[in-house]
Amino acid sequence: MASATTSRPETTPPPEPLAPGKRAAVVGTGLIGASIGMALRARGWHVTGADHRVERAHQALAAGALDAVGVDPEAEVTFVATPVSAVASEAGLALAHGGLVTDVGSVKAPIVAAVDHPCFVGGHPMAGSEQEGVEGAEAGLFQGATWVLTPTTGTDPAAYARVRSVVSTLGADVVALTPERHDTLVALVSHVPHLTAATLMCLADEGAEEHAALLRLAAGGFRDMTRIAAGHPGIWPDICAENRDAIVHALDRLRSSLDDVRELVSTGDRDGLLRWLEGARSARTNLPGGLARPDALVDLRVPVPDRPGVVAEVTTLAGELAVNIEDLDIVHSVEGDRGLLVLVVDADVADVLREALMTRGFRPSVHPLA
Amino acid sequence: MASATTSRPETTPPPEPLAPGKRAAVVGTGLIGASIGMALRARGWHVTGADHRVERAHQALAAGALDAVGVDPEAEVTFVATPVSAVASEAGLALAHGGLVTDVGSVKAPIVAAVDHPCFVGGHPMAGSEQEGVEGAEAGLFQGATWVLTPTTGTDPAAYARVRSVVSTLGADVVALTPERHDTLVALVSHVPHLTAATLMCLADEGAEEHAALLRLAAGGFRDMTRIAAGHPGIWPDICAENRDAIVHALDRLRSSLDDVRELVSTGDRDGLLRWLEGARSARTNLPGGLARPDALVDLRVPVPDRPGVVAEVTTLAGELAVNIEDLDIVHSVEGDRGLLVLVVDADVADVLREALMTRGFRPSVHPLA
Repeated sequence: MASATTSRPETTPPPEPLAPGKRAAVVGTGLIGASIGMALRARGWHVTGADHRVERAHQALAAGALDAVGVDPEAEVTFVATPVSAVASEAGLALAHGGLVTDVGSVKAPIVAAVDHPCFVGGHPMAGSEQEGVEGAEAGLFQGATWVLTPTTGTDPAAYARVRSVVSTLGADVVALTPERHDTLVALVSHVPHLTAATLMCLADEGAEEHAALLRLAAGGFRDMTRIAAGHPGIWPDICAENRDAIVHALDRLRSSLDDVRELVSTGDRDGLLRWLEGARSARTNLPGGLARPDALVDLRVPVPDRPGVVAEVTTLAGELAVNIEDLDIVHSVEGDRGLLVLVVDADVADVLREALMTRGFRPSVHPLA
Repeated sequence: MASATTSRPETTPPPEPLAPGKRAAVVGTGLIGASIGMALRARGWHVTGADHRVERAHQALAAGALDAVGVDPEAEVTFVATPVSAVASEAGLALAHGGLVTDVGSVKAPIVAAVDHPCFVGGHPMAGSEQEGVEGAEAGLFQGATWVLTPTTGTDPAAYARVRSVVSTLGADVVALTPERHDTLVALVSHVPHLTAATLMCLADEGAEEHAALLRLAAGGFRDMTRIAAGHPGIWPDICAENRDAIVHALDRLRSSLDDVRELVSTGDRDGLLRWLEGARSARTNLPGGLARPDALVDLRVPVPDRPGVVAEVTTLAGELAVNIEDLDIVHSVEGDRGLLVLVVDADVADVLREALMTRGFRPSVHPLA
């Protein structure tokens, strides 16, 4: 639904003189795109935005999410915030201007494969709301949220480091994952839960035609569980098409687990049921909240060969281990064939990452924060 | 876990002189029992409470949920708030004192069949929290909540009317349903959603052992959906045992619906998926919130033969039609063989109930509020 319009220069005020590092663009000014615009503007960026539906870009301008409507060829970073099916073409258009490009699509592997450009970094902020459009947008939407980035062997390390840094300034905690791993995991914690919420809601509603009383019994738990079913349906056909295999696989796992539960109930296995529910409760209680701020940070210095993919390899390994990278810097050696990757991480977990890196042949060292 | 202790007179302060209509008892002083105690006390009742775990009754006393620990043979109404499996025996003990007895169990048909007493009215407040015990109790827990009562042909109409009135004063909206209908409906909007939340949580947790990153991706929607899985697991083996057939049937319907969704996803049926999600969204959006207060009320007067079950029949019919009964009064004729049931209902829906009653052979009439 939301994709870029061509520039409408007659509606774009003349750009103010700003440092080139502070010009960004947003393509698709729905809930996420407009929130990115607001968050960037709150941090001093000049933000130009476009939308397939021109009136929506103007709404975003009026709401304070943009400085200008149109296309900014000088943008250092462009955020493509269109539905999944439009990301690849919009990213291609933005890359033609020469800046860095990232996106916010809920599926990553097909997009990253289709764009395939060193200056494109796939992304997915795990934030949203059942609201839609610029009305629901807010500058603080990403504060404390997890924002996945999916660098690959083809990603320019400097491009990744810069996109990572910009996303971090919006308040998000960046997790690097391979595109394929991202898609498998979100099928399990986002796509299938959404489809399940919709299924539960439809079941209750079917019954309600017959028994008007039914929905009066829908108390807090049911309301919590089905809240996401109130979200915008328009984005889901794309997501289900692009992440079909992972979703079908996760649905099969859900079905198999529900069969196990049915067995526990129908055979009256009280102990089994209790053990299983205690496991679920314990898992729910241990669900990580907003990321705890570490007491102490250290530099993890990783000498790396100057070859493609090494930054992606190191950062996605940290992502898999749930080691949060607070900051990332790439120092090139004067010889140019080697570099130094400096990761700022929680002192408590630095060794976990250091050891994992050593088993992959790296020689990292831990230092007090420079 | 929670069931009555015998009276411990040494810890019970001498009862204050109160009108007999203002003495209540609570058996089982967990979250719901203690909240009932607090809500009753806030409305001037003297509340005596007991618990299988004596220290828990004393906690409830200390928290202000009770006036006294022990058993009050003078209680006009006793609320049995123990786990489902203990309700029938505790209700039997309380009925031996001669007052009215109701319960709060999540399953109704087996309890109502086991107690089978004209002064027992099965009940189920659709309120709770993932907290447990007296720590989570609050006097306002039932404000605006739906509270199901399940009168049967064996219920004394005066007992039902009185329990209904007391429950209404706690702020709850009473819905009368047959015990069997209640059990079918809660399987769909409470029991199976709970089991599904636990299943989704366990699936994500299994994956998390392998991929520490996974739970970092669990954003708002997943947290909402799995919140109820953090609730007290101890009550569920009882619920699943007592409501087994309805739960298994609802699980089968869920499974069949998930199979339909899997088919939509795997065949890439975008239009079908969109239509289905739009249906879910519309149902979620139309989920009734707290009951709207009617603009105008009327008396619906229903002449009834003085035979058992007629009050249950009329009120459960209103429950099925989701017609909220604001107040209920039973007027006996001087001859004693006929009575008049006076229901106060929303003027806008009075005709719906009137017509349904007429098809069942009643001759109701609508009057301005007396």
